[in-house]
Amino acid sequence: MNAALERAQSLIRTIPDYPEAGVLFRDITPLLADAAAHRAVIDSMIEPFAGEFDVVAGVEARGFLLAGAIAVAANVGLVPIRKAGKLPRPAAAVSYTLEYGTATIEAHDDMKPGARVLLVDDVLATGGTLVAAHELVSKLGGTVVATSVLMELEALGGRAVVGDVHSVFTA
Amino acid sequence: MNAALERAQSLIRTIPDYPEAGVLFRDITPLLADAAAHRAVIDSMIEPFAGEFDVVAGVEARGFLLAGAIAVAANVGLVPIRKAGKLPRPAAAVSYTLEYGTATIEAHDDMKPGARVLLVDDVLATGGTLVAAHELVSKLGGTVVATSVLMELEALGGRAVVGDVHSVFTA
Repeated sequence: MNAALERAQSLIRTIPDYPEAGVLFRDITPLLADAAAHRAVIDSMIEPFAGEFDVVAGVEARGFLLAGAIAVAANVGLVPIRKAGKLPRPAAAVSYTLEYGTATIEAHDDMKPGARVLLVDDVLATGGTLVAAHELVSKLGGTVVATSVLMELEALGGRAVVGDVHSVFTA
Repeated sequence: MNAALERAQSLIRTIPDYPEAGVLFRDITPLLADAAAHRAVIDSMIEPFAGEFDVVAGVEARGFLLAGAIAVAANVGLVPIRKAGKLPRPAAAVSYTLEYGTATIEAHDDMKPGARVLLVDDVLATGGTLVAAHELVSKLGGTVVATSVLMELEALGGRAVVGDVHSVFTA
């Protein structure tokens, strides 16, 4: 890890007992607020896949922050993956199971057939959202060429369900 | 307006009767999905204020897409302004009135005192959210040096309440 990334990692704030007792919440907002740290992380998220994707797809809401940045840094198009009910004309939807209940994600039909997609999110936890996002991209006619996250929470085992994931940081 | 922006404008999709009868919804997702159009709009949102801001603040959720892009394009830090209840340690909150009921926005204390802030969102409608966001930035110790939106819906009169706003497109 280079010095810029080490500094970025030091800006991730760990908040104990949030959102519930016993959970360590990893807060990336101090990192985002620092221009150099932010850029170092964005570059690291895309570097292994340079030239291999035409579109970045990010999951609402924190994934939007990273997807917007990656769209400019990599000069690619951006497809937002939204929570249910936010889009006027969803072309595809995927529901998935959460710890309590279910969630649904949706996207518009703005992806060219065969588009090569980099799928991004801030955190890989159990992997449920990213697995659903993979399926959503397939329904839209695109191909996920890689999945990239800022931080992987290894103890939650998301890698086992999502498959190959590039993570800048692990915890 | 240059050719790149004219093309970007042509990619904004107008959807009648959404979210309710009589409303013309302006859908920017086709524009975001086009790398060149997206970049032209991002450049236009920041060009009048080059060098005048240290931080971009974007309002959840669509404003996150633009704020992420602007953070990279302008090489500045990014402060997300979130809806209530999403942040573990909100340092400031502002409530404001919507057509029906109220909403609250919050942010973490990641802004240096005196930070010069570019406030961004996708659409200027009635202006309620942006006025609240101005107040939130002040509470955090920052100064809004400019407000920039992708599209201004002139008939809704938001400019009268927000004050000076730079809009790439009007409708």
